Amino acid sequence: MEISAGPLLSQINSPADLKKLSRDQLFQVCDELRHYIIDVVSVYGGHFAASLGVVELSVALHYIYNTPYDQLVWDVGHQAYGHKILTGRKDSFITNRKYKGLSGFPKRSESEYDTFGVGHSSTSISAALGMAMAAKYKKETERKTVAIIGDGAMTAGLAFEGLNHAGVADADLLVILNDNCMSIDPNVGALKEYLTDITTSPAYNKMRDDVWKLLGKLPVGKRFTRDMAAKLETGIKGMVSKTSNLFESLNFRYFGPIDGHNITKLVDTLADLKKIPGPKLLHIITVKGKGYALAEQDQTKWHAPGLFDKVTGEIYKKKFDLPQPPKYQDVFGHSIIELAEANDKIMGVTPAMPSGSSLKFMMEAMPDRAFDVGITEQHAVTLSAGLATQGLRVFCNIYSSFMQRAYDQVIHDVAIQKLPVIFCLDRAGLVGEDGPTHHGAYDIPYMRCIPNMVVSAPMNESELRNLMYTAQLDKNEYPFVIRYPRGEGVMPEWKTPFREIEIGKGRKLKDGEGLAILTFGHPGNFATAAIRELKAEGIDPAHYDLRFVKPIDEALLHEVFSKFDKIVTVEDGTVVGGFGSAVLEFMNANNYKADVKILGIPDRIVEHGTLKELRNECHYDSAAIADAVKEMVNQPVTEKLIS
Amino acid sequence: MEISAGPLLSQINSPADLKKLSRDQLFQVCDELRHYIIDVVSVYGGHFAASLGVVELSVALHYIYNTPYDQLVWDVGHQAYGHKILTGRKDSFITNRKYKGLSGFPKRSESEYDTFGVGHSSTSISAALGMAMAAKYKKETERKTVAIIGDGAMTAGLAFEGLNHAGVADADLLVILNDNCMSIDPNVGALKEYLTDITTSPAYNKMRDDVWKLLGKLPVGKRFTRDMAAKLETGIKGMVSKTSNLFESLNFRYFGPIDGHNITKLVDTLADLKKIPGPKLLHIITVKGKGYALAEQDQTKWHAPGLFDKVTGEIYKKKFDLPQPPKYQDVFGHSIIELAEANDKIMGVTPAMPSGSSLKFMMEAMPDRAFDVGITEQHAVTLSAGLATQGLRVFCNIYSSFMQRAYDQVIHDVAIQKLPVIFCLDRAGLVGEDGPTHHGAYDIPYMRCIPNMVVSAPMNESELRNLMYTAQLDKNEYPFVIRYPRGEGVMPEWKTPFREIEIGKGRKLKDGEGLAILTFGHPGNFATAAIRELKAEGIDPAHYDLRFVKPIDEALLHEVFSKFDKIVTVEDGTVVGGFGSAVLEFMNANNYKADVKILGIPDRIVEHGTLKELRNECHYDSAAIADAVKEMVNQPVTEKLIS
Repeated sequence: MEISAGPLLSQINSPADLKKLSRDQLFQVCDELRHYIIDVVSVYGGHFAASLGVVELSVALHYIYNTPYDQLVWDVGHQAYGHKILTGRKDSFITNRKYKGLSGFPKRSESEYDTFGVGHSSTSISAALGMAMAAKYKKETERKTVAIIGDGAMTAGLAFEGLNHAGVADADLLVILNDNCMSIDPNVGALKEYLTDITTSPAYNKMRDDVWKLLGKLPVGKRFTRDMAAKLETGIKGMVSKTSNLFESLNFRYFGPIDGHNITKLVDTLADLKKIPGPKLLHIITVKGKGYALAEQDQTKWHAPGLFDKVTGEIYKKKFDLPQPPKYQDVFGHSIIELAEANDKIMGVTPAMPSGSSLKFMMEAMPDRAFDVGITEQHAVTLSAGLATQGLRVFCNIYSSFMQRAYDQVIHDVAIQKLPVIFCLDRAGLVGEDGPTHHGAYDIPYMRCIPNMVVSAPMNESELRNLMYTAQLDKNEYPFVIRYPRGEGVMPEWKTPFREIEIGKGRKLKDGEGLAILTFGHPGNFATAAIRELKAEGIDPAHYDLRFVKPIDEALLHEVFSKFDKIVTVEDGTVVGGFGSAVLEFMNANNYKADVKILGIPDRIVEHGTLKELRNECHYDSAAIADAVKEMVNQPVTEKLIS
Repeated sequence: MEISAGPLLSQINSPADLKKLSRDQLFQVCDELRHYIIDVVSVYGGHFAASLGVVELSVALHYIYNTPYDQLVWDVGHQAYGHKILTGRKDSFITNRKYKGLSGFPKRSESEYDTFGVGHSSTSISAALGMAMAAKYKKETERKTVAIIGDGAMTAGLAFEGLNHAGVADADLLVILNDNCMSIDPNVGALKEYLTDITTSPAYNKMRDDVWKLLGKLPVGKRFTRDMAAKLETGIKGMVSKTSNLFESLNFRYFGPIDGHNITKLVDTLADLKKIPGPKLLHIITVKGKGYALAEQDQTKWHAPGLFDKVTGEIYKKKFDLPQPPKYQDVFGHSIIELAEANDKIMGVTPAMPSGSSLKFMMEAMPDRAFDVGITEQHAVTLSAGLATQGLRVFCNIYSSFMQRAYDQVIHDVAIQKLPVIFCLDRAGLVGEDGPTHHGAYDIPYMRCIPNMVVSAPMNESELRNLMYTAQLDKNEYPFVIRYPRGEGVMPEWKTPFREIEIGKGRKLKDGEGLAILTFGHPGNFATAAIRELKAEGIDPAHYDLRFVKPIDEALLHEVFSKFDKIVTVEDGTVVGGFGSAVLEFMNANNYKADVKILGIPDRIVEHGTLKELRNECHYDSAAIADAVKEMVNQPVTEKLIS
C-alpha cells in the first residue's frame, strides 16, 4: 500500500529542507507529519501515541537547532518517529520495527541524527550531559545539547542523578520536560502531583510575576517599616529565585510550563533558550496521542495499538477458529488474585508495568495490596525487600531487561538477607520488535550467580501457576525468580488447580534413545515440536524439562548423564554462562563426559524482528533443535583427544 | 586490652535501660558512648568518623522510639556503632569487623534491632517505606518507622525514587537527613549546594516564619487593595507550603535544619515528630568525627583510619624492612595521569570513590578531565557513554560490588552501542572486613554474559598498566573491563614501560607436567606460590595466566587441552558462571574431555574477616591450590562413565 506524505513533508529529506520553510509554514508541516505517522502506523504498526504528542516539538527542534552538530537525545525513544521522518528516514519509515528495517528507537548506527541509542527510560540527561561536557572540554562553545524526557521517565533515579550533576557541571544543557502525565500507564508518584500542581495552579508563573510586581508596590509606612519590607523582599526573592521550584533547587533555570502543541510559541522559546548558557529546563505540556481523538481519550490502549482502521478507529484483531491459549501475562495477572484471596500476606509490586504485566487486575481488585510504583525498578525491589521483612510475600513483577536496573538491589537487599521476595521476570528471552534494548537475554547468568536465589522458568501456563503457588508458600525461605516470555501461551485450558512443585525438581517429559534434550522454560515447547518432527525420521530423543536452573535437579541430571552421552540443551537466554553452562558445571563436577550442544541466544547483539524471525536466526527454534539432534545422533561420540 | 565503658553506659544493655535515665543524664550518656567508640576503634579498628557524628542521634532515637517494635533503618550503616552498642552489643563490640565477629554494618541475623541489612548506600527510604506500608496494611497504627540517611546517600537515584513514592504512599515514615556535607570524600552535586544554601542562608526557616508574620501585618489601603493582598498571600502560601522546598515538592513535611549534636533539641523534636503522621523529613546538621578534633579536621582520612593512638592521634603504620609493592589503586591513580598526559582524549569518572580508587590524583592534576560525580553509579556509567560518543576515552572507576548498581547502564548504554568505555572494577573479588555487601564476587559472570565486552584482569601492577594502556588505544573499539582487587600489589618496581597487550591474549607462565593451572588475574600469584611449594614434592604443573575471560584465548586453550587432561582453574570470583565455567564452555565447544577443578568463591554468602581468613575458608589460596593439584595428580583421569 502506497502512503504518501503531504506536499510540504514530501519535500523534506533533512532538517536543512525544513529550515528553508517560513515559520508560517510550520503549522502545515506539523499537520502533515502527524497524518503521515497515523497513516503509516495504522497500516504497518508501531508505537503510536507518544510520537503524536511531540510532533510540534520535533519540528521546532530541527527548525531551530543545527542538527546533527547540535545534539538531540530522545529519552526512551519511541516518541522519535517524527524525528526519524524529518531526518532522512521518511521513505524507509514503513520498515519501522520490521526485521532488518528501521529500529523503533533512535540508534546510533542508523543515523548521525540519532546521537544516543535508547529504549529504556531516563538515560537522556546523563548521556546529554556527557556530550555537553565533551563539547566544553573540546571548546566547541557553539555546540548545543538537548535532552527530551517525559514526566514518567523523570521519576527514575537515574534522571535525578543526572540533574544533580548537571546542576553543578557548568555545561550547556537544555532539558525539555515533556509532561503528558503518562508513561505507558498513567504516571504515579509525588513528582507527578508536583508537576500537576505547577500546571494546574492558576498560572504558577504569572503568580511569580505578580509577586514581583506587588513587591514594587509595597507601602513603606508606619505599620510596615523599610526594614520589614526589605526583609520580606529578600525572603521572597530567596524563595523564588532559589527554592521556589524543584528544578531550581537543583540549580537549573526553569522555564514554563508552555503549551507543547503551539508551534509558534515553541519555536520562539527554543530560539530564546538557545542563547542562554548553563543548565536549564523547559517544561512543556503535551497530550499523548494528540490529533487522534481516540488515542487522546485512552492513551494506554493507544500506546502501541497494533494495526487499525484510522477512520473508524477499529483495532484489528487476529481471527482464530479455535479458542486461543492465554498469554503468560494474563495467567500471572489472574492467578495472583486467586492466590492473594487465599493468602492475605501476598502483595503485588510493579514499576510502571501494570498493563504489560497484567498486575492491573489485582490493582483494581485489591488496591491496598498491589502497587504501581512508577519507573523505579531499584525502588520496587528494595521496597519489596522492606515488605518481606514484615513477613509479607511480595510478587515483584519486572521485565527481564528492566530488572538489570535493579541488579544491586536483588543482590544486596534481597539475596544477601535471604528475603523470600518473588521476582516475576516477564519478557524473559527474545522479545521481538522492541529489539536489543528489550531482549531479556541475560537474566539466567546474572541471576544464577547469586547465592540463595531460586531461578525457575515454567514451560506452560499450568507450570507458571504452580511455580507461583510454590513460591508464596510459607515454607519457601528463598528469593524466587520465575522467568517467562512475552505472550506465547500454549494451554487454552490454563486454569488448572494449584500444585506445589518441589523446589529444584525437574521432570522427565519423555524417555528416548541415543540423545537427551534438556530444556528450561518455554523453549521446552520447541523441543516437543522438534521431537514430533524427528519421529518421522526414526529419531527418538528423551526430553527433560529442568524447570529450575538453580538449584538444578542433580538427581535428574545423574539419570540423564548415566543414560546419555549426547545432550542438547535449549534456553531462551544467552549461551554464555546460562542454563547450558549450568549443565556443563554439573557434568564437570560429577565427572561425566558427554557431548553437549548448547542452543540459545548467541553471544552478540540480536536486533529486532518477529520472534519467529529472530529465533530462526538464533538457531533455537524447533527446526534448529531438530537439526542439532540429527547432527549429533549421526556423529560418533567424541573421544578424549589425549589420554 | 580491657576497655571499659563509663558509669552510665556500662549499665545500658538495651534501649529499655536507656529509657530509665532522665533527659538530663543523656548528655553524659552521649559523652560516654563517644569515648567508648574512640577507645574501641583506636585499638581494634573500624569505621570511625561516621559513628561519632551520630552519637546524639543514636541516643535520642532509642530514647524516644520503642525499638525494636518501632523500626530504625540506618542507611549505609557504618555509622551504626552507637546503635549497636546501645542495643546489647557493647561487650561484643571489640569483635567488630573481625572474622566470626560483629558485622561492621547492621545485619538482620545479628540483632532484632537491625531491621535491614545495609552496606551500599541509599536503600533506607525504600526499605523503611516497605516496613511502614506493611504496618499500615496490618493496621499496626502505633508502629513507627524511621530511615536515617546522609546527604551523600541522598544523591543516589534510589533515594529519590523512594522519596517520590513515599510522598504519595500515605504511610507513616520519618526520614532523617543527616547532613554533614560528606560521603567518604566531600559530597558533590547540586543537592549538596542546595542543602548548604538552606543551612547557611540567614535562618531559612526563621525567614519563612517572618514572611508569615509580616503577612499578618499587610496594610489594606488605597495603594494595596484587599484583592492584591489576597493574591499575594495565596502566591506566597502556595510557594511556601508547596514549592518552597525540594522535599516539600515531593509531598514531605520538612522540619529543620536543627543541630544534630544538641541532644535536648533532638529528643524534643523527635518526640514531637512521633505524633505527626505521614511522610516527613527532619534535616539535622552534624559534624563527621564530632568530638575527636583531628577527625573533625580531616574527615576523609579519619573515615576508617586503622589503628591509632587516641591521645596523640598518630595513625599506626605497619613497619617493613623492604620497599613495599604499591596497591593496585595507586598504580591506577598514577598510571592514568601518565596516560592522560600523552592522550588528551582520556577522561576519568568515579561515583564518590576518588580516594578509594585513587582517581583523586588526576582530579588534582587535571581538574577539567577527572570528575567525582557523587554516589551515582548509574549516572557515572551513562555519562561515560555520553562522553564516549564524542570520541573521548573514559576510564570509569567503580568498585565491583557497586557496579551492580549500574548493570543496566553497562548493557544498555555502553555494550549495545559498542562504546569503548573503560571500566576499572576496583575491589573485585573478596574485600575482607567490609563483608558480603562489598565482596566483588559476581562481576565475572555478570560482565562476561554481555556481548561486545572485553573482560580482563591483571595478575600484577605491570599487567594493570599494560591493560590500561591497551584499553585506551584508538584501535580498541570495545567496552573494556579491567578488574583488580583491593590493595594487594606484588611489584615494588611497578613503574614499567607501557606495553600493548593483544586483546584476548593470555600467556604461559611456565611449562609443566601432568596438570595445568589456569588463573585469571591476581590469584595467579597464589598459584605461583603453590607451584613453589609443590616443587619440593616433585610435582611440577604448568601455569597459564589467561588475562582475559572474554574474549578468551582459544589458541592458548587449545594448547592447554591438547597437552593436559587435568586442569585446575583459579579465580577471585564466584564459581557459578565465572572463569572456570568459561573454560568449561570452551572445552565443551571444542570437544575436549579433561577433568577440571574450579577454585574460587563458593556459591554462598561469604561473611567478613581478613582476606587471608576468607580465602582460606573459600579454598582458593595457595595452600588450597596446592592441595587441589596434589589430589588431582594422584588420581587416575576420569573415564567416561558410559560409552
